Amino acid sequence: MAFGSFMKIFLPKDRVFYGLFEEVSSNLTHMTDLFSSAVKEQDITKRNTLLKGLEEWEHKNDEVTHKIFIELGRNFITPFDREDIHYLATSLDDVADFIWGAGKRMMNYYIDDIDETTHEFASIINRSIKALNKAVYGLRDMKDLRSLTEACVLINSLENEGDDALDKGMMQLFTSNTNAVEIIKKKDLYQMLEIVTDKCEDAANVIESIIIKYV
Amino acid sequence: MAFGSFMKIFLPKDRVFYGLFEEVSSNLTHMTDLFSSAVKEQDITKRNTLLKGLEEWEHKNDEVTHKIFIELGRNFITPFDREDIHYLATSLDDVADFIWGAGKRMMNYYIDDIDETTHEFASIINRSIKALNKAVYGLRDMKDLRSLTEACVLINSLENEGDDALDKGMMQLFTSNTNAVEIIKKKDLYQMLEIVTDKCEDAANVIESIIIKYV
Amino acid sequence: MAFGSFMKIFLPKDRVFYGLFEEVSSNLTHMTDLFSSAVKEQDITKRNTLLKGLEEWEHKNDEVTHKIFIELGRNFITPFDREDIHYLATSLDDVADFIWGAGKRMMNYYIDDIDETTHEFASIINRSIKALNKAVYGLRDMKDLRSLTEACVLINSLENEGDDALDKGMMQLFTSNTNAVEIIKKKDLYQMLEIVTDKCEDAANVIESIIIKYV
Repeated sequence: MAFGSFMKIFLPKDRVFYGLFEEVSSNLTHMTDLFSSAVKEQDITKRNTLLKGLEEWEHKNDEVTHKIFIELGRNFITPFDREDIHYLATSLDDVADFIWGAGKRMMNYYIDDIDETTHEFASIINRSIKALNKAVYGLRDMKDLRSLTEACVLINSLENEGDDALDKGMMQLFTSNTNAVEIIKKKDLYQMLEIVTDKCEDAANVIESIIIKYV
Repeated sequence: MAFGSFMKIFLPKDRVFYGLFEEVSSNLTHMTDLFSSAVKEQDITKRNTLLKGLEEWEHKNDEVTHKIFIELGRNFITPFDREDIHYLATSLDDVADFIWGAGKRMMNYYIDDIDETTHEFASIINRSIKALNKAVYGLRDMKDLRSLTEACVLINSLENEGDDALDKGMMQLFTSNTNAVEIIKKKDLYQMLEIVTDKCEDAANVIESIIIKYV
Repeated sequence: MAFGSFMKIFLPKDRVFYGLFEEVSSNLTHMTDLFSSAVKEQDITKRNTLLKGLEEWEHKNDEVTHKIFIELGRNFITPFDREDIHYLATSLDDVADFIWGAGKRMMNYYIDDIDETTHEFASIINRSIKALNKAVYGLRDMKDLRSLTEACVLINSLENEGDDALDKGMMQLFTSNTNAVEIIKKKDLYQMLEIVTDKCEDAANVIESIIIKYV
């Protein structure tokens, strides 16, 4: 028996979820930092190497998410409502999927100029995932409910910033005589990035509802 | 203590949901009427003022939706299944989001010609939200189940009309030598409008399932 | 009293769900076979007749799905968790909707050349729905859990193939000097087809979670 499995016996079974969500959250933190580095990288080959790195994290995250669902099926007792665990795992998994989706499009569509809107999204997403990470790690002991709630409020307001970034980005495309094919590519990229902020908000909303039930 | 809070004490706690859903439904009614007036307005400046008005309602509605989720966390006893309240609140909130999303796009993309398809959508959405309003207000006493069910059936058939309007609209764009950039803009607008009818249907489906459980 | 209704009395009420899901699954099998025949058909008139045939199956499937929701409202006891029945019915219904959505777009947008990507999607979807059919029929007696699980794993890997087909298809469009209007049409078609594989995966994930709870 591996030491990990040995330890698990002494761990209250429902506490396994905290560790898995923290693992997911760490993966997302790595992904957003990688994406931020990539958009700042001027050299296209180096940038694509960074973007390509997202795939590995996305796969890694798929596995942890799968574990959460397996544990959910196995455990009758869970630290918070079953559907909250389900929603939270799904939202966080979507965050990973859409960051990688955005990175993949930048490579596949040969989007070589990192425009203002993409930089803005990278920054919004980074702040959102950092706040999300704080919220996820706060779930374990539920000590500092105020800072937990503040993180969720911040993520909600960053989602609004994401909406505005998409609107402004699209307006810029339409008013700058950009050709239609370029607009199609950029629209696709912006939408992926905007969905990342949506999914962060979905996750924050689940966390908020967990807090409300706990209080 | 405000009179409202005073009254709340005497109100069975679970009945708070009816009032909140009715408030959301009234907001949506205001929004669809505003949108209908806007598409009929020939003067672009006046039209944009009407469309801009949607934002305020959307924000107002966000707050009521937030209240529903807070109450859901607080109340152990709810008038109907917790997940039905969750789905209903989410669907209705999406209706508001996508009406405002459509209005915003009309302004941001400088879509100045209100075409046949947009007029058709405005009418479909208006009828759908009016039926939805009837259904939501019918939930409180569940007296006239037949007319409640009829409203839900109507919303379902209006969603089909929405699908057809989207199909017809896209075909018109593709067969009328419209330039690609214009197609991108209109496609985005039509899709927003079509999603409004989808979300009305989602809400109607939840209401139908609430009725079935009640009978 | 019809013989069918007579029999129903002797049928444990919760077992009605198996038959309904099998009916949905058979509908989907018909639809994917019809779609596969259509994309292989060179003659456009004959092809469109095949594609048009999808609509009837989609309507038929709507009715069965509706029955599932009615039974879900009526039955207090269900063979598996209520939310699993809900998710499974919704995902399978979406599979039907998006196959018909893809077929409709091929006709409406006059997409006459069935390209490599469309052929690939037809094959992926066909294999995915056949595996799904096996999984759905396996739910009734839960005898061969290994082959049930294998079907779900296959569907997951076919969803990845679908992602890759979309990526490759879009890259081909962007690198082949295809004009923007054509790209818009094909992008819409590919996305519909990719969503079919997503929805098959959603259904497989529900089935997997049903198995986990059963074991």
